[in-house]
Amino acid sequence: MAHISQISSFLSRVLIFLALCITLFTNPTLALPALKLNPLQEFCVADLQATPTNSGFPCKSQVTSEDFFYSGLNTPLNTSNPKGIAANPANLLTFPGLNTLGISMYNVAIAPGGYNQPHSHPGATEAGVVIEGWVLVGFLTTNNTLYSKVIGPGDMFVIPPGLIHYEGNVGKTQCRLLTVVADDLPSEVGVPHTLFATKPAIPEAVLMAAFKADSKTIDMLRSKFTT
Amino acid sequence: MAHISQISSFLSRVLIFLALCITLFTNPTLALPALKLNPLQEFCVADLQATPTNSGFPCKSQVTSEDFFYSGLNTPLNTSNPKGIAANPANLLTFPGLNTLGISMYNVAIAPGGYNQPHSHPGATEAGVVIEGWVLVGFLTTNNTLYSKVIGPGDMFVIPPGLIHYEGNVGKTQCRLLTVVADDLPSEVGVPHTLFATKPAIPEAVLMAAFKADSKTIDMLRSKFTT
Amino acid sequence: MAHISQISSFLSRVLIFLALCITLFTNPTLALPALKLNPLQEFCVADLQATPTNSGFPCKSQVTSEDFFYSGLNTPLNTSNPKGIAANPANLLTFPGLNTLGISMYNVAIAPGGYNQPHSHPGATEAGVVIEGWVLVGFLTTNNTLYSKVIGPGDMFVIPPGLIHYEGNVGKTQCRLLTVVADDLPSEVGVPHTLFATKPAIPEAVLMAAFKADSKTIDMLRSKFTT
Amino acid sequence: MAHISQISSFLSRVLIFLALCITLFTNPTLALPALKLNPLQEFCVADLQATPTNSGFPCKSQVTSEDFFYSGLNTPLNTSNPKGIAANPANLLTFPGLNTLGISMYNVAIAPGGYNQPHSHPGATEAGVVIEGWVLVGFLTTNNTLYSKVIGPGDMFVIPPGLIHYEGNVGKTQCRLLTVVADDLPSEVGVPHTLFATKPAIPEAVLMAAFKADSKTIDMLRSKFTT
Amino acid sequence: MAHISQISSFLSRVLIFLALCITLFTNPTLALPALKLNPLQEFCVADLQATPTNSGFPCKSQVTSEDFFYSGLNTPLNTSNPKGIAANPANLLTFPGLNTLGISMYNVAIAPGGYNQPHSHPGATEAGVVIEGWVLVGFLTTNNTLYSKVIGPGDMFVIPPGLIHYEGNVGKTQCRLLTVVADDLPSEVGVPHTLFATKPAIPEAVLMAAFKADSKTIDMLRSKFTT
Amino acid sequence: MAHISQISSFLSRVLIFLALCITLFTNPTLALPALKLNPLQEFCVADLQATPTNSGFPCKSQVTSEDFFYSGLNTPLNTSNPKGIAANPANLLTFPGLNTLGISMYNVAIAPGGYNQPHSHPGATEAGVVIEGWVLVGFLTTNNTLYSKVIGPGDMFVIPPGLIHYEGNVGKTQCRLLTVVADDLPSEVGVPHTLFATKPAIPEAVLMAAFKADSKTIDMLRSKFTT
Repeated sequence: MAHISQISSFLSRVLIFLALCITLFTNPTLALPALKLNPLQEFCVADLQATPTNSGFPCKSQVTSEDFFYSGLNTPLNTSNPKGIAANPANLLTFPGLNTLGISMYNVAIAPGGYNQPHSHPGATEAGVVIEGWVLVGFLTTNNTLYSKVIGPGDMFVIPPGLIHYEGNVGKTQCRLLTVVADDLPSEVGVPHTLFATKPAIPEAVLMAAFKADSKTIDMLRSKFTT
Repeated sequence: MAHISQISSFLSRVLIFLALCITLFTNPTLALPALKLNPLQEFCVADLQATPTNSGFPCKSQVTSEDFFYSGLNTPLNTSNPKGIAANPANLLTFPGLNTLGISMYNVAIAPGGYNQPHSHPGATEAGVVIEGWVLVGFLTTNNTLYSKVIGPGDMFVIPPGLIHYEGNVGKTQCRLLTVVADDLPSEVGVPHTLFATKPAIPEAVLMAAFKADSKTIDMLRSKFTT
Repeated sequence: MAHISQISSFLSRVLIFLALCITLFTNPTLALPALKLNPLQEFCVADLQATPTNSGFPCKSQVTSEDFFYSGLNTPLNTSNPKGIAANPANLLTFPGLNTLGISMYNVAIAPGGYNQPHSHPGATEAGVVIEGWVLVGFLTTNNTLYSKVIGPGDMFVIPPGLIHYEGNVGKTQCRLLTVVADDLPSEVGVPHTLFATKPAIPEAVLMAAFKADSKTIDMLRSKFTT
Repeated sequence: MAHISQISSFLSRVLIFLALCITLFTNPTLALPALKLNPLQEFCVADLQATPTNSGFPCKSQVTSEDFFYSGLNTPLNTSNPKGIAANPANLLTFPGLNTLGISMYNVAIAPGGYNQPHSHPGATEAGVVIEGWVLVGFLTTNNTLYSKVIGPGDMFVIPPGLIHYEGNVGKTQCRLLTVVADDLPSEVGVPHTLFATKPAIPEAVLMAAFKADSKTIDMLRSKFTT
Repeated sequence: MAHISQISSFLSRVLIFLALCITLFTNPTLALPALKLNPLQEFCVADLQATPTNSGFPCKSQVTSEDFFYSGLNTPLNTSNPKGIAANPANLLTFPGLNTLGISMYNVAIAPGGYNQPHSHPGATEAGVVIEGWVLVGFLTTNNTLYSKVIGPGDMFVIPPGLIHYEGNVGKTQCRLLTVVADDLPSEVGVPHTLFATKPAIPEAVLMAAFKADSKTIDMLRSKFTT
Repeated sequence: MAHISQISSFLSRVLIFLALCITLFTNPTLALPALKLNPLQEFCVADLQATPTNSGFPCKSQVTSEDFFYSGLNTPLNTSNPKGIAANPANLLTFPGLNTLGISMYNVAIAPGGYNQPHSHPGATEAGVVIEGWVLVGFLTTNNTLYSKVIGPGDMFVIPPGLIHYEGNVGKTQCRLLTVVADDLPSEVGVPHTLFATKPAIPEAVLMAAFKADSKTIDMLRSKFTT
């Protein structure tokens, strides 16, 4: 019986080998990239149409030069919205060639007086350069120290990984920033937004203790975040 | 001249070798632990009296059994304070044997109606077991979903790394938790505390935008956090 | 021909997009968790009913609060067995929410005079707290130093990763420990059990050299481990 | 002149050292930030005046907001040189706040017809955005496939870690790029520069075999790289 | 309705459990290996007949002793070829038991006067021992320093990860090396081969700038690498 | 008194600082290698004469080609000892150039009938090639499966990281192995040696439970391991 299974295994190997040969013969660029594997592989352009597994999106089997270039950062940004902020993201979902490469970039515009809400990117450094205008950049350490400065065109800032930070336009004209986050699909935790916009809602008693406030105050704060 | 430096180098090697021999001969348990180095070393009991470097506290050169045991978790906990919470921490600073081992533990008591403020431990999983009483445990994902449950004696919970979470006593008697964080000296970011208690203060305009509130509301909220 | 494949690719994208829209419309909580991927994802509750791949169990697609809480640690422990030891484990297989979070916990009871055999957890720190009774805890470094102590209720111990250790009840009543291992499914190497219980058996010559003993002694030792 | 700069450097080090001593003596709470240690610490602004150890530059003990902002990226770039390339780097050595944060940025200008020589950054992803002009960007995989494209203002490119790549100005006016490398002090291996500029020189026989060429050709090639 | 889905879920669990029991009963060695998962699993013998995913080749489900031994290193080596070099590799593709274990080994023979072209293995240390003959081993740092030496039988060398290196036979008889690379399927970047053998070809202007040479020289150099 | 210790600490710092300044002043090329730092630095040849810190041995400041080559592997091996085993190690302590590079190599000779005791190298893969003779190689998984085979000249084996393994000479002449461990200074846990040779001794009750044996048997076993 072992012999039979060995023979069928041998046959299946022959068939797989033939299939591979035919595939390689008719499409010579196809198979080789698959031989260099994660974490050994040199890149893994995400196949966003496939179902992600617990190790992320599968890699595209056929890759071209186009996969490593992206023209979407530069589409017009409209800051005529309540927050006065607009951004074009180049991350894993818009630029699949970034998959596993650990970098995403953002073209951000802020109207005068607009502020990003304080937020953090768990585990990822952020840096950026002001392209135009004047920007207030600040971040908080976990021992509650604030580091901040107003910077202008060509100036660079860096936010250590995971720390809560904000940017605001303190000039008289729209400002623009080019930023980079050391993660190809960074998480974002907005504060205090995360406390009020959660589904289901955080119990009032928790928020009352957190804000040292009565239920009326909590209701008032929360009302701003319901749509 | 090269010869002279080689001779002196040779002499210094001889002297160092002799010194090592004498040291080892008179104190055989002393030198060997130093040969297994970080990340190869098996442990590195922190020498809290030495100056930490950019790679942490130096390791103690003489280690005994006492360094791996700690009796401070069990000292009485008094929850008669405004927050109704008390905790004994076993971390790198109270139990130096935990240094580099990636675990800290906490004995926590909460008075009825007391709530931990929402907070996160960047990069570190937390888990815990209820020893007595009834506890509400909740955490928020970065897409603003709340997972929470009331648990009782013997029940266990887990908080994924970096997510904002809280615990509260929803029973009628004091509750007690034994918790563990996967970091020997975890950071803690308290929310909203971090927005109001920072030094220097976050500009009012930032908080007004974050809370979608006027300056009077921000002043009121902030006033609770000044001592 | 390239045009045809582009058109069919375009059509398949449209269809997948429609399918995604319909899925999201009818089940809004389903798709988002998949967008945050390992190692970026915030958690990955194991789907134990699915076939594990070389990167572990797939993540459950639908997660509820129940997935992060576990009540099985507290089921009664019966130490009336030859070893005098009983334990309830909370690991990846009993508490799938622990998957990828790097922590498992154990409720352990030992009858008076009972001893855990010496064993190691490769790559994982262990720590624990005595809940009741008196426990001898010891571990061995790779340069054959023994560190050990008898500890009582509320006392904590830590075992550096990978070192051989043991626990024993040296009191007159049953003891109970709450332990944590920094791995959601830790391996365990029992010594000398691993030398005698292997299938197939280790050749006698190997064990004779290891124990510096004759074959009769090896047979005698080995006979205790066969069932 | 070297002596004078060495002496002034010496004096400045002495003065800084004295200042540090006085500061520490009069302000004992200053050292606290050091309690959050690498990899636990939130940042480690490099003290470039101190001697680096095998774990890098020591962290500055006193940090201010200025440490996280940098204005040197924007200084004028002069491409009137043989290569037609100029760059302002923001890395660990020019912007010490980047230390341990894993990101460096570059403002690069290339004259029309100028080309960066092919080079790699071992272990680090590079990405960038064209600010003005038209740029040819190309990279080589280890199975000798070339991916390349000409991109213009606002377009983004990404180079997987460690792959050999080049940029060139294929337009009629100066081009400018803002690039980021996922390393705060990236290495750079220039090819073929590294084969000809090494000290001591690589033996001719090695280069003859590598280029499949005679010694006359190797001498001719090498002559371009001697100054 | 929740009840119905719970019942069907319960039924499917029962069925899966029965299936598992039957599988285990009839093939006791089959299922357990799957329970220890990557990165927890102890090994993952590659199933080269299966399709690799973005986390590499699947693990073989049935493993025997044969999977951890390899006899192909020792097949005869013929150096009668233009380069005068021959090698038997033991890597993931020839010895699937090496998968995920981070080591590959090579039996290398070089004819007198033969040279490996300069090349690097991104991210992986290489070491080796001369078995017979006399070998020139050299490597280049990224600040263009050459370290090299001629070594003989029994001598060992080490090449730091990612640095360009070469080996050549400077003796009068064939030499043989046993080498190890800290990667189970190392990449190799050959220099200058990679500049001339790329498909599509690197534009001439890039190579002219890199070699500081005219197009005629580049054509001459490139002609050696076309087949 | 605190003041006095602070002053003396201050004085010692001044003196160290002066010494450093003089060193740098008289040898300006000394500091540059230090600019490429761990983990960025390309190598870190251990300065074994310096005191190791919690991040290992300091790097040598002046490195030559000799630092990357080692001739000690090949010194004669004498197996005329009770175990019948002899080995020349090339690890961090004998070949300091291996420091931080993650590889050590061993030239091992075993007399006929000799056996390595079962042992493990925590966290490190081992591989090897038989140079001469016939060798039995076996290893144990943590679910107590034994994988083993007798191999001869040119054959290769691999031991997954951390698993207990042994080698023995089952031929009629001395055998020789060239082995590699993926660690520049691997730990070794010998079994059962570690149970009997510990200082202080493991309590008899622990060993009696582990071996399911009476105290007389334990005394007998232990007596073989006392010198």
